[in-house]
Amino acid sequence: MAQIARRSPAPAKASRFDGEFDIVVVGGGGAGLASALFSRWEGNEVVLLEKAPQLGGTTIKAAFWYWVPNNQAMRALGIRDEKADCIRYMARLSRPEVYDAKHPRYGMSEWEYEHCEAIYDHASTATELLAEKGALEYRHCEAVPDYWAELPEDKAPMGRVLLPKDARESMSDGGEVAIRTMSGAAKKAGVDIRVNHRVQRVIVNDKNEVVGVEADTDRGKTVRLKARKAVIFASGGFTHDVAMRKNFLSAPVFGGCAAMTNEGDFVNIGSAVGAALRNMNYAWMCPIVLEKALKKDPDLIGTFSPSGDSMIYVDKNGRRVTNEKLAYNESAQAFFTWDPARAEYPNLVLAAIWDQRSQTHSASDEYGRFIVPEGKDDAHVIKGKTLEDLARSIRERFAKYTDAVAGMQISDDFVGNLKATISRFNDFARKGKDLDFRRGERQVELLFNGPAAENPAGPNPTMYPISDSGPYYAALLTGGNLDTKGGPMTNRSGQVLDQMGQPIPGLYGVGNCVASVSARAYWAGGATLGPFLAYAYLAAKSAHRQPAKS
Amino acid sequence: MAQIARRSPAPAKASRFDGEFDIVVVGGGGAGLASALFSRWEGNEVVLLEKAPQLGGTTIKAAFWYWVPNNQAMRALGIRDEKADCIRYMARLSRPEVYDAKHPRYGMSEWEYEHCEAIYDHASTATELLAEKGALEYRHCEAVPDYWAELPEDKAPMGRVLLPKDARESMSDGGEVAIRTMSGAAKKAGVDIRVNHRVQRVIVNDKNEVVGVEADTDRGKTVRLKARKAVIFASGGFTHDVAMRKNFLSAPVFGGCAAMTNEGDFVNIGSAVGAALRNMNYAWMCPIVLEKALKKDPDLIGTFSPSGDSMIYVDKNGRRVTNEKLAYNESAQAFFTWDPARAEYPNLVLAAIWDQRSQTHSASDEYGRFIVPEGKDDAHVIKGKTLEDLARSIRERFAKYTDAVAGMQISDDFVGNLKATISRFNDFARKGKDLDFRRGERQVELLFNGPAAENPAGPNPTMYPISDSGPYYAALLTGGNLDTKGGPMTNRSGQVLDQMGQPIPGLYGVGNCVASVSARAYWAGGATLGPFLAYAYLAAKSAHRQPAKS
Repeated sequence: MAQIARRSPAPAKASRFDGEFDIVVVGGGGAGLASALFSRWEGNEVVLLEKAPQLGGTTIKAAFWYWVPNNQAMRALGIRDEKADCIRYMARLSRPEVYDAKHPRYGMSEWEYEHCEAIYDHASTATELLAEKGALEYRHCEAVPDYWAELPEDKAPMGRVLLPKDARESMSDGGEVAIRTMSGAAKKAGVDIRVNHRVQRVIVNDKNEVVGVEADTDRGKTVRLKARKAVIFASGGFTHDVAMRKNFLSAPVFGGCAAMTNEGDFVNIGSAVGAALRNMNYAWMCPIVLEKALKKDPDLIGTFSPSGDSMIYVDKNGRRVTNEKLAYNESAQAFFTWDPARAEYPNLVLAAIWDQRSQTHSASDEYGRFIVPEGKDDAHVIKGKTLEDLARSIRERFAKYTDAVAGMQISDDFVGNLKATISRFNDFARKGKDLDFRRGERQVELLFNGPAAENPAGPNPTMYPISDSGPYYAALLTGGNLDTKGGPMTNRSGQVLDQMGQPIPGLYGVGNCVASVSARAYWAGGATLGPFLAYAYLAAKSAHRQPAKS
Repeated sequence: MAQIARRSPAPAKASRFDGEFDIVVVGGGGAGLASALFSRWEGNEVVLLEKAPQLGGTTIKAAFWYWVPNNQAMRALGIRDEKADCIRYMARLSRPEVYDAKHPRYGMSEWEYEHCEAIYDHASTATELLAEKGALEYRHCEAVPDYWAELPEDKAPMGRVLLPKDARESMSDGGEVAIRTMSGAAKKAGVDIRVNHRVQRVIVNDKNEVVGVEADTDRGKTVRLKARKAVIFASGGFTHDVAMRKNFLSAPVFGGCAAMTNEGDFVNIGSAVGAALRNMNYAWMCPIVLEKALKKDPDLIGTFSPSGDSMIYVDKNGRRVTNEKLAYNESAQAFFTWDPARAEYPNLVLAAIWDQRSQTHSASDEYGRFIVPEGKDDAHVIKGKTLEDLARSIRERFAKYTDAVAGMQISDDFVGNLKATISRFNDFARKGKDLDFRRGERQVELLFNGPAAENPAGPNPTMYPISDSGPYYAALLTGGNLDTKGGPMTNRSGQVLDQMGQPIPGLYGVGNCVASVSARAYWAGGATLGPFLAYAYLAAKSAHRQPAKS
């Protein structure tokens, strides 16, 4: 949790300031740094305030793929990515319940359509400018597919994903690279960067225009900073505010891998000056290791890559309930199944189970894998010489967390069912066809299959028969957030809108702290950061044009 | 929709008022009338403002069962309903993901626990006072079970439900009776009742205390009314605000049977003065007839009673996917199943299908039944002489609404699957045992089974074989709201709380316009109105004690 306590978000008045800038940026992750850079490059005096002791936010933990429709590299390769096609793909996934291919906005509201347009129109421009200026150079991930590449609506299923140029071969350190290059560029450009500053509220003038912020520092000081033109919030979602998770998200989530400082500050600060909230029910989701979430482990990474071909997820009865290799946002949904006849979430915790083959060949400490190499943090790994032995250990582990998971425990017939489940899975593995959940049939599943042994059992590399002798391994998983998607509603210039749809003068928002048009969807890897760069660009452009306020 | 347009909810200042009262109540449904009565009986000058041209709100459409734990009638009969047991039952269902029988608050937060306590401690007191004063006399529904009567946590599974005394034998007109007696009592007691007044915002003084409201009338006039002590909002949920439904609810809902004036006004008005929002993701849910929801039929009633023993629900492939007789809040969940591998809601619309037997014996125009008598509004009923014929008609009906339901249509193998489904169901019906969904095994399912023929097929009166000859009937159903559960957070005195948990001086909320502690749960019939009476009582008591403000 943040070291500087939350105080009232009610807006303040101020006659004296401790510093004056054109633009105040709140938040030092990817969205905040980009906003600061674009603002500064327009010639503005810019300060960036970060709540944590260091820059990076959630971004520094990410691979920093960024999804940029119709990007320059695609164009250079002659890959066509028409605007209408791209927006149709976004609509199909974001609002599946009202998607209509023949509707002029594909069933979306005007607000939703405009935001999809903004992403398509500006993500590439923003990307190129960051690259030109040396703040964020990229390499093109030609072979990375969208997460729904098989849908007929996806006319450009590969080519939209970029990565920081100097990221390692496995791509997992993209966030570190990006934060290093972007913060370096920000310092070089003269952005005033201040860490350990928690913005508590905005300062308004007599016309109710936003003219600055009040921040508390780690030393207990309150600092008032004037923003002549605008305040741009880029302070992250509400993953680590328990009350907000419970009262807004559509799913019972125990935590997630957003920066621990993502406590929904801007939901409260924005609401306090009349911002309308949108998409508060949605999140970027991912299975996570239950115990890391319960311990509030700041190093928690979502299990993007459910590696292991001889690995399955089973429920408390020892039965498979889902395709383990689905892309993470969709995989997470399995945990939230509601049983209306029993009034319970039967899958709230599932056990991943694997054998020595997967342990030997699929262990890695990248991409949040739960199969980790020896010597790495493996406190979450449950071991057993036999399946009976493993089940006993799983039972003990559940008992340890009984108060956190509503008394969930494996059933008495767990081992018997597990053996039948393994037998059925092994048969699927040998034939290469999962008749229950169609594991391994989609491109994205191969993408995230992770390292594996070289001798597949059949035509489907995501499945291999689980050994009939131990040792066996298990990990308890639940559905979690990368971060949340809800917050104040903005227009396509990033201006925060009030309940009547009017911009609140001087107030902007970018990134997970404001509402994401993606709603239900995770279009592709980088569907977070690519759009954020577009919005950072648009917000900075618009903020730059604001008249100075008194 | 409301005839008087929504305007900005930003709080106003005022130096002159068009009228002065001790307490201003906003909303003329059950919660508002009760708040006005309790306030007036304390000797306050009270005005009640209603947006619609008439009183009644959602309440007038309801049966007005009211769930009153440990009520006087139970006590008279010697039915024990201990506080700890009752709160444990509430916790088990409201927060199933963290329920812990051994935790001092059963896994709930302090706020949640206190609200459960408030309901237990005060619903009976409020009920008795209303009865004594002749505003709402009741009769005891001894035989009506809680909706989860079989749970071990339910130690008083019958006896908590009351009904307005003069409601008809079938109980369906309880809301009309209650609104008649309560509004009669309010007039008699001297409450100033004004319809066609839409409250747009509160008026605050220089100390940011709430001291009144601004309302627009149907004649285009803006009226400023002073509230010396308090404003009590009881203005309903946000069922009929499309944007709020989409952006807050955890399920894709097309509408519901709340009063058409329930547009979430207090979410916006309360937020604008700093109220914290809670349980925005939850709603009181019920299957509804799709076409009535799409037409925004103000007479829409939830299908509380899925009558018909020879009746099943099938999906677009002609297959059963749920127990049709589950209590409505749970039955609605079946429609929201998400298929993460296909990115769709496969059950968003289900077809209820029945034969002549159910049409003859189970038709009724009460409790929102979709099997209605001849001569009643049956525009939603699809007919066919054979199953093939019926399927053709269902296909045509879906085609009519394709733009509203994301192109949903029955599959090519619908009829074949439907025949197999009917054959399997008929077998279950003859044996009295539904091996797929356990239809008819719970008390509440019998309660809502509705009228039926007298010759059951077997020991289970909820199932009878569907005839192998036509005519056949169908209706398209979806999951809907009765009303929503989210809104400003209140304390147990009904005071609206800000983001720091402090009461906003002068501002109270009661009913569906504020956050309901019930969250995921529908404890029993009347779990809406029973608690509302407790809160109306508590809010009025607290408001009465407020010092007059200038």
